[in-house]
Amino acid sequence: MMIVMKPTATEEDIQAVIARIESCGARAHPSRGEEVTVIGAIGDRELLATLPVEGYPGVEQVVPIIKPYRLVARELAADPTVIDVDGRRVGDTYFGLIAGPCSVESREQTLATARAVADAGATMLRGGAFKPRTSPYTFQGLGLEALELLLEAKAETGLPIVTELMDPRHVEEVVEATDVIQIGARNSQNFLLLSEVGRAEKPVLLKRGLSSSVEELLMAAEYVAKEGNDRIILCERGIKTFETSTRFTLDLGAVAVLKHETHLPVIVDPSHAAGRRDLVLPLSRAAAAVGADGIIVETHPQPEEALSDAAQQIPTSEFAAFAAEVASVVALMGKEIG
Amino acid sequence: MMIVMKPTATEEDIQAVIARIESCGARAHPSRGEEVTVIGAIGDRELLATLPVEGYPGVEQVVPIIKPYRLVARELAADPTVIDVDGRRVGDTYFGLIAGPCSVESREQTLATARAVADAGATMLRGGAFKPRTSPYTFQGLGLEALELLLEAKAETGLPIVTELMDPRHVEEVVEATDVIQIGARNSQNFLLLSEVGRAEKPVLLKRGLSSSVEELLMAAEYVAKEGNDRIILCERGIKTFETSTRFTLDLGAVAVLKHETHLPVIVDPSHAAGRRDLVLPLSRAAAAVGADGIIVETHPQPEEALSDAAQQIPTSEFAAFAAEVASVVALMGKEIG
Amino acid sequence: MMIVMKPTATEEDIQAVIARIESCGARAHPSRGEEVTVIGAIGDRELLATLPVEGYPGVEQVVPIIKPYRLVARELAADPTVIDVDGRRVGDTYFGLIAGPCSVESREQTLATARAVADAGATMLRGGAFKPRTSPYTFQGLGLEALELLLEAKAETGLPIVTELMDPRHVEEVVEATDVIQIGARNSQNFLLLSEVGRAEKPVLLKRGLSSSVEELLMAAEYVAKEGNDRIILCERGIKTFETSTRFTLDLGAVAVLKHETHLPVIVDPSHAAGRRDLVLPLSRAAAAVGADGIIVETHPQPEEALSDAAQQIPTSEFAAFAAEVASVVALMGKEIG
Amino acid sequence: MMIVMKPTATEEDIQAVIARIESCGARAHPSRGEEVTVIGAIGDRELLATLPVEGYPGVEQVVPIIKPYRLVARELAADPTVIDVDGRRVGDTYFGLIAGPCSVESREQTLATARAVADAGATMLRGGAFKPRTSPYTFQGLGLEALELLLEAKAETGLPIVTELMDPRHVEEVVEATDVIQIGARNSQNFLLLSEVGRAEKPVLLKRGLSSSVEELLMAAEYVAKEGNDRIILCERGIKTFETSTRFTLDLGAVAVLKHETHLPVIVDPSHAAGRRDLVLPLSRAAAAVGADGIIVETHPQPEEALSDAAQQIPTSEFAAFAAEVASVVALMGKEIG
Repeated sequence: MMIVMKPTATEEDIQAVIARIESCGARAHPSRGEEVTVIGAIGDRELLATLPVEGYPGVEQVVPIIKPYRLVARELAADPTVIDVDGRRVGDTYFGLIAGPCSVESREQTLATARAVADAGATMLRGGAFKPRTSPYTFQGLGLEALELLLEAKAETGLPIVTELMDPRHVEEVVEATDVIQIGARNSQNFLLLSEVGRAEKPVLLKRGLSSSVEELLMAAEYVAKEGNDRIILCERGIKTFETSTRFTLDLGAVAVLKHETHLPVIVDPSHAAGRRDLVLPLSRAAAAVGADGIIVETHPQPEEALSDAAQQIPTSEFAAFAAEVASVVALMGKEIG
Repeated sequence: MMIVMKPTATEEDIQAVIARIESCGARAHPSRGEEVTVIGAIGDRELLATLPVEGYPGVEQVVPIIKPYRLVARELAADPTVIDVDGRRVGDTYFGLIAGPCSVESREQTLATARAVADAGATMLRGGAFKPRTSPYTFQGLGLEALELLLEAKAETGLPIVTELMDPRHVEEVVEATDVIQIGARNSQNFLLLSEVGRAEKPVLLKRGLSSSVEELLMAAEYVAKEGNDRIILCERGIKTFETSTRFTLDLGAVAVLKHETHLPVIVDPSHAAGRRDLVLPLSRAAAAVGADGIIVETHPQPEEALSDAAQQIPTSEFAAFAAEVASVVALMGKEIG
Repeated sequence: MMIVMKPTATEEDIQAVIARIESCGARAHPSRGEEVTVIGAIGDRELLATLPVEGYPGVEQVVPIIKPYRLVARELAADPTVIDVDGRRVGDTYFGLIAGPCSVESREQTLATARAVADAGATMLRGGAFKPRTSPYTFQGLGLEALELLLEAKAETGLPIVTELMDPRHVEEVVEATDVIQIGARNSQNFLLLSEVGRAEKPVLLKRGLSSSVEELLMAAEYVAKEGNDRIILCERGIKTFETSTRFTLDLGAVAVLKHETHLPVIVDPSHAAGRRDLVLPLSRAAAAVGADGIIVETHPQPEEALSDAAQQIPTSEFAAFAAEVASVVALMGKEIG
Repeated sequence: MMIVMKPTATEEDIQAVIARIESCGARAHPSRGEEVTVIGAIGDRELLATLPVEGYPGVEQVVPIIKPYRLVARELAADPTVIDVDGRRVGDTYFGLIAGPCSVESREQTLATARAVADAGATMLRGGAFKPRTSPYTFQGLGLEALELLLEAKAETGLPIVTELMDPRHVEEVVEATDVIQIGARNSQNFLLLSEVGRAEKPVLLKRGLSSSVEELLMAAEYVAKEGNDRIILCERGIKTFETSTRFTLDLGAVAVLKHETHLPVIVDPSHAAGRRDLVLPLSRAAAAVGADGIIVETHPQPEEALSDAAQQIPTSEFAAFAAEVASVVALMGKEIG
């Protein structure tokens, strides 16, 4: 940590910061420049994290030198983490192709979709039981009933299930039913939910928040890992920007950065980012080409009748062609659909 | 709702949309322009909200004509809502001056702060018991113990308490202890928590999410109101933008818009927006001048030793002067500190 | 154009809007809904564009139905535009591989770079003569002298030149020397410069502004096309968002949208978006996979000594390997490097 | 400047950076921490600015310690700069009230507006002669003819004129006619135009770019100051964010930051930020209360017929009441309308 003092900081200000650093057992290395003084604080990472020097008189800014995440950092693991879910793998050379409806709406829709994506080579089935919706007047998901339908689809197709957990009071049921617990974008800084799934025995698919930086996403993952669960799949799904021609701005640069920063697999959700189905294929190809470890896409037997996010779901009838296109980029990248 | 068809839409596409609109009892009014056709859908608001026409072939865009919020809309109430909390009022001509520490850290700190802000004319005491922190390695709040300290401060000063609820499993304890339930920015789209506090008997202070639009904030309030609780105070606290000289970008234009759109009181949190204490006074004055119904600010007996957000807390020793400055703008606006 | 009236609009307000629409020869189609009235204005596109109804009493919002761009719109041209520059092509099945230094710094650096990129199969040479720099204290480019060096590099390698025009007073020299005139991101809404290059006889490479929406980028292109120059290459180069792990946020979703909206070729500048060289390859691959018609990348014989943007330039010694990797994605997309 | 090395940086990497720093006469102070090494570079500011160490192997990030602006920095001038324009002052205790039409459209409109704002106590007259418009199909301003009309209005009312310069080829005419040269938001990083007005003998009103950070705005001002013109008025006018309920997001926090960072006066343009006239008064009051040194607002005799930005112009008939409201906040802040 480096503490940059203001040009107007007095010697007393400088000494107060040094004393505070040393009082907690860290070492202080002041560098007196021609215009400002910078004090390096060297010591244990956690200890420095709690030093409240930002509020001290004369302090201009505090520059963290060491990344605030540790368990999820690239340095921790020599090899990329591969997450195995019932024999389906995500990470390193395995590309996860996760597909299914936005919401579980009915038995028929769920089973038809599951069969179509299984036939096309998808590796997992996604489906929302509890839906976070901007408006309280729209469809909120079938809830626990949806979990039953997903389990039936799994029994028939063998596809592991990915579904979202929104409520800490549903942890038991959702963890019991699902194979991968999804934490949605709007809960990506719901720290207590992160801690809960950190104690679960199932892998976690953690979506980036709409306004989360790459570092904040990694800190969210750190919350999960700190509780003992290191089976985390990160997911870029678009961020809020001024651009409105897509629903969110898919940040594939963040995927490239994450591949440097963490050993965890990183997948992409092009459906929610785009908000329209004609962009899902090009963005899926781009995700594979940028080095993502998988995609999670929405598909529906009759998208125009979907109860949520109708505009962005691919018809199941077109899913096999879609999957084949993506597979060719995956192969070019030297990976296989896991 | 207006459905704008693509220039390439066929007559069949147009008829399919019209049929879908009429199938649910709404009326369809097509206008055939020289380049495109626009179909107006007229009918009951909730009914239209569920029409999934976005996914239909040939549809370019769906333009909602009617605002998606209703209970919180200006039209619903002829007069601005005044929220009375133990005789302290927020809204219309009453300006709420809510102050206190970022986190409740100790009995001494809490009582000292409460006395200082009470003496300076604050109308409520804020204090975090559970703290949402980006890093799992930092102070997470004293939890239920903090509620006890806040109650002691209330007993001594008479100030009603505002504290944050993060976990639906804590609803009972927090609602019991606090006078106003705060929903933080990172939970502003935690819809189940919103529904929970919608069933509580206490007023709700709802912060805008870091990436929530004005409309999304109002929809979050609608979640609360729909459950029966219409005592909601909205709070602008800065949004995420590219600018980094302040921690967030305080959007006072949104406050002005909200005063047009809703009958609910709207307050401002300049402390979290600025992230540095020297900006809190100018931004508080600006908040009062733009027409906000109050501010919520952080203060601490020794800001440089605060366990969270040290840089942004005003020393309690300076709080009276701060309050006086704000009060003069409040008076100019024809309001009184409630 | 649809004019949505406020719920509080009077019949007089409605009639005033209708009268104004009809006064200029357009037709007005009012639809009276249960809560609001919407007035469709049907008529000539340019005529409607100038109707100032936004300022009329009782008007809530004006929703444009027809896209404001015309010459660059997809509808205008059945086939994608291919831009031929001295036999090098960009667009449709031709992928442009434009490479070279950020700035022209010296004869040696320019020639060495030109040879390296020519050998590796680049189709054009980029190089900045005039550099827009945030700080007045940094290197501003060699100016007209740089144009001479680029011409020498062209003479030796046969590569057409792309260089930036910043000043309308340099139009003659730059247009004379260069093969493609680049308009930089910071000038993407410099409308007079756009009009100038619209009258030039050379193709234009138009970068998206740091805060330009897709529509604003297309309107900038429309300025060029309106003056008669329809040889325009659009370039996505990253937008300003809250994310700081990359210098800008590369918006590949915008590329996918642009491929729907316009017949013009769309290329990507991963170097400026990323700001660091280790991300340039993954983002270039992603650009090719999303359907871009080319990339423009920075390369330097000794990046660590570059006078501008040192961190993002690829060493020329690694450029051939880089180009080969990109070429494999280009081939997969059924294109050839033009 | 502090150079933070990667944890994986070798001793050779560290020595190479040190050697590069010392090779140009600066001093290098390495601090070897437990996880990473940080190298402080101490020396002349301009010299450090040109050190290209970002591209060196093993470098994680370069943290500038010293602000990159100098002439416009607070430290340079003990007292706030007051800009005197024909006896009208902006800065320190003088609040500039600059008003007029968005565009000069006709003699009648210009004179009527000038009289109204002069009567109401405005201190300068604004009016656009050349208009930067997103669409080439909309009104582009009357050009040089407008300058004549502004001069006539000045002759009658005595109000100094503020008008925008867009084209370096118009420098002579615009500088000759106007009293304050405005550089618009879309030209705020048009560095050659900045240098041109840096050599002019008239004060400059410099608007913040739509995506310019506070630091970039100050660097733009530094371009002007470096050429010798230190009579610069900065203007916050809203930035591009995800929020669409206002046209731009007015960043009053930036005004508060600027008052700390620079000795130059800072004014606010609430009209362009809001995009709707009912928000102009609250935002103007907020601007005065946050400590701005003035506002620049748009007014028109018949806003609904304005040829540009109709929705945001205040009717001249309401301008006196508007000015009185603003004046009361200005007085409260201990300032006078200059």
